[in-house]
Amino acid sequence: MQDKKPGAGPEEPQPKKLSPSVQSAIDRIKRGAEELLPEGALVERLIESEKTGVPLKIKAGFDPTAPDLHLGHTVLLRKMKHFQELGHEVIFLIGDFTGMIGDPTGRSSTRKQMTREDIKKNAQTYADQVFKILDKNKTTVRFNSEWCDKMNFYDVLGLMAQVTVARMVERDDFTKRLKAGDPVSLLEFMYPLVQGYDSVALNSDVELGGTDQKFNILMGRDLQEKFGKPAQSILTVPLLVGLDGQKKMSKSFDNYVGISEAPYTMFAKIMSIPDTILKNYFVLLTDFTLDQIDDWIKTDPFEAKKKLAASVINDYHPAGSGEEARKIWEQEKSTRKGLVLPPETPELKVSAKEILLVQALVDSNTETSLTAARKLIEQGAVKIGDNLETVTSRDHMLTFPGEYAIKVGKKKYLIVKG
Amino acid sequence: MQDKKPGAGPEEPQPKKLSPSVQSAIDRIKRGAEELLPEGALVERLIESEKTGVPLKIKAGFDPTAPDLHLGHTVLLRKMKHFQELGHEVIFLIGDFTGMIGDPTGRSSTRKQMTREDIKKNAQTYADQVFKILDKNKTTVRFNSEWCDKMNFYDVLGLMAQVTVARMVERDDFTKRLKAGDPVSLLEFMYPLVQGYDSVALNSDVELGGTDQKFNILMGRDLQEKFGKPAQSILTVPLLVGLDGQKKMSKSFDNYVGISEAPYTMFAKIMSIPDTILKNYFVLLTDFTLDQIDDWIKTDPFEAKKKLAASVINDYHPAGSGEEARKIWEQEKSTRKGLVLPPETPELKVSAKEILLVQALVDSNTETSLTAARKLIEQGAVKIGDNLETVTSRDHMLTFPGEYAIKVGKKKYLIVKG
Repeated sequence: MQDKKPGAGPEEPQPKKLSPSVQSAIDRIKRGAEELLPEGALVERLIESEKTGVPLKIKAGFDPTAPDLHLGHTVLLRKMKHFQELGHEVIFLIGDFTGMIGDPTGRSSTRKQMTREDIKKNAQTYADQVFKILDKNKTTVRFNSEWCDKMNFYDVLGLMAQVTVARMVERDDFTKRLKAGDPVSLLEFMYPLVQGYDSVALNSDVELGGTDQKFNILMGRDLQEKFGKPAQSILTVPLLVGLDGQKKMSKSFDNYVGISEAPYTMFAKIMSIPDTILKNYFVLLTDFTLDQIDDWIKTDPFEAKKKLAASVINDYHPAGSGEEARKIWEQEKSTRKGLVLPPETPELKVSAKEILLVQALVDSNTETSLTAARKLIEQGAVKIGDNLETVTSRDHMLTFPGEYAIKVGKKKYLIVKG
Repeated sequence: MQDKKPGAGPEEPQPKKLSPSVQSAIDRIKRGAEELLPEGALVERLIESEKTGVPLKIKAGFDPTAPDLHLGHTVLLRKMKHFQELGHEVIFLIGDFTGMIGDPTGRSSTRKQMTREDIKKNAQTYADQVFKILDKNKTTVRFNSEWCDKMNFYDVLGLMAQVTVARMVERDDFTKRLKAGDPVSLLEFMYPLVQGYDSVALNSDVELGGTDQKFNILMGRDLQEKFGKPAQSILTVPLLVGLDGQKKMSKSFDNYVGISEAPYTMFAKIMSIPDTILKNYFVLLTDFTLDQIDDWIKTDPFEAKKKLAASVINDYHPAGSGEEARKIWEQEKSTRKGLVLPPETPELKVSAKEILLVQALVDSNTETSLTAARKLIEQGAVKIGDNLETVTSRDHMLTFPGEYAIKVGKKKYLIVKG
C-alpha cells in the first residue's frame, strides 16, 4: 500500500453523481427493502436502461401451490409494482416444474406432488389476485417447465457440477435439519439449483424475494456467472409481521389479513395491530413518504392507524371502500354495545314458523355442527338483537314472522328472516 | 421373550441342507471373496436358477477410462468368470454415461470429460483384454447410456428423491473430504445413484465389485427395493496388494503386473513379491484348491512362487509360456552377472558405420532424450556386452559391422545391429 494524501488527485474514484431520475429510481427501489446487492451493478443497469430504453428484467418466483394471498405476500408484489412503475419488465415466474415433484418419503418438508391441471388452476387463481396489484399489461407470466421440461439427464448433471455439497449445506434450514438428524432428501438440493437456473434461462437483471429466499437468489447470481452471463442483482424484502406483532404473517398463525377479505373485516383486523408495528406496516403496505408517515404517527397514532387501514383497503377494493369501512367501524365503536352489522352480513331465510337458534346457526353455515353451536351458546358467545343480549339457553327459539340480527363469537354476524 | 428348551421342537428353524451342486456353487463363489450379503438370498436364487434353468444376472461395472489392465483388475474378472463357469449371465457394464460428465471445477476427483468416440475406443480396448479371462460368448456387454440417455429432468428428480443427504455423506470418501473442507461437487453424489439405478435397469441378481465399491453396490440394493424389485445380493472381492506387499496394486505406485506384459517380465515381477503375500496371490489369481496352495507353500515357498508365476502367465499368454519364462528366468539367475536377453528384446538396425550409444538409446525409443540417456550413463545404469560391462563415458561409440546387447536400468534391454 502506498501512502496517499487525502484528496490527492483525479485517480481517486469519485462517488458517481447520479442523474435525478436514476437517483429517484434507486431510492424508490430501496424503500422498504431489506437488502440490495450489489447496488452498484443495479445503478449501472438503471443508467444503461435509461440510455438505451431497454427495460430491465425483474424476476420473482412463486410456488404453484393454491394461493390465497394475504398482506404478507403483497410486500413483494408491491415491490414488483414499483419496478413496473419505473418502466421495467416484471416476470411473474411460476415454479410449476418443481411443483410437479413430490417427495415420496413423506418425511421431509418437500412439497406435495401436483398435476399439470392443479397448476393451471392455481395459476389462474394467482392471476385473479395479483393483478389487483400488478399491471397486467406490464407483467410477463412464465413457467419454469418451459426450460426444465427440455433438460435431459446430461444437462442436469452439468447443472449439478456447478455447486459443491458444502455450499448447499450452508443453507440455514439444511444446516439445522442435518444437525438435528432430520432427513433431507437429495431432491431438496435441487430446488435452489432449479431456482438459480431459472435466472440463467430468463437472463434476469434483478431477482426479488423475501429475506428467506436470499440463499436461493444468490444461487441465481452464481449460476448466471458460471453460465457466462451477467449476474443479477438481488433485492430482498422483509417478511411482514402478523397482526399479533410477533410472528410472521401466516394463515397457520391466524394473524393475517387476506386481500380478498371484506373491507370491514380488513379494517377491524388492521385496527387491532399494536402501535409498535404501525410504521413497519405503513412502509411495507403503502407508498406514503417516510416524512409523512412519521409525522402522522407522531401526531396521532390512532388516526394514523385508520389512515393505514383505509389505504390498504382501497388497494384491493373499489376506491372509497376504505373510508366506508372506516365509517362503519367508527359507528360500531361509538354505539359500544349496540349491534352494527357489517355490509356483507349473510342472511338466512326461514319458511317455517319457528326454528331453534342452534339449527339456524348450522343451516346458515355459521357453525358446522349443532354440538359446536350449543357449545358457543353455553360459553355466552352468541348475542342477539340490537342490544346484543347474550343467549343463555341452548334451546333458544326464534319465531316468525320476524327478523333477528345475531352475533356469533367476535367476528361472525348473521341475519335470520322469516 | 419366552424360555425355550434347547432343541425343543420342529418350530426351530433348521439350517437348510443344500444340494451338492448348490453347495459347490456357493463355495466357489465365496472363495477369495471379501463379503457376500445377504448370503441366504443368493442361495435361494441359486436353487431357483437350478430348478428353472434361468441363469442369474451377474453385474459388474467398469469405468470407461482408458484401461490397461493389471493383475489387480483380474481379481474381479476372475470372480465374474467363476459365475460364467457356473452357467450364469455375466453383464460387463461400461459406465459410459457417467464417464461423459466432466467436473468443470477441476478441483475434485471427478473424472475427466470424455467423448463418445473416446468411450467407444476404450470399450474395444477393454474387450481385447477382458476376453483373455472372460468367455466372450457368455458375456453381455452393456452401456449405462442405454437407459440414462433416455431420462429427463423429471426422472432424475424421481431418482434423487429416493436418497437422503445424510445417507450419501456416509460414504467414506465423502465424509473425509467434507470434514477436511475439500470441495465435493454435487455432481459426485450422482455417481452412486446412477450406479445403483443401473441395477434397477438391469434387474441384476448379484453385483460384484471391489471392497471400495461396497457403498455404491448397496445403493443398488436400496434402489431396486424402492423401485419395487427384488434386491440384488452384493459380493465384494478384496483389492489386490501390489508387488511391494504394502500398497494396493496400482500403476501409479509402480507395483503392478500388467496382463499384457511379456512373460519374462511378469515372471520376474511376480518372483519379487514378499512371501507374506504369496498365499493371497494364489487365492486371488489362481483356481488351485486351498489345500494344494497351503501344501506347496509349506513345502517350498520358492518353488511355490514359481508355480504361481507360471500359472498367472499361462492365463494371459499361449499355453506353456509360463514354463518358458521360468526357464529363462532360472537361466539368468544361474549365470548371475552374464546377460540373458528376454525373448522380446527390441532391436535397432543401424546403417551407418558408427553411432553414439546415447543416440542409439534415443533412436530405439529406449530413452526419450539424449539428456536422459547421458544421465543414465553417468549413473552407471547402462551396461553392454555379454559381461555387462558398465559404460562410463557419455561419448561411448558403437562401431559396425557388429552386434551389441545392452541393458539399461534394471529392466530394459536392447540389441543394436549394423
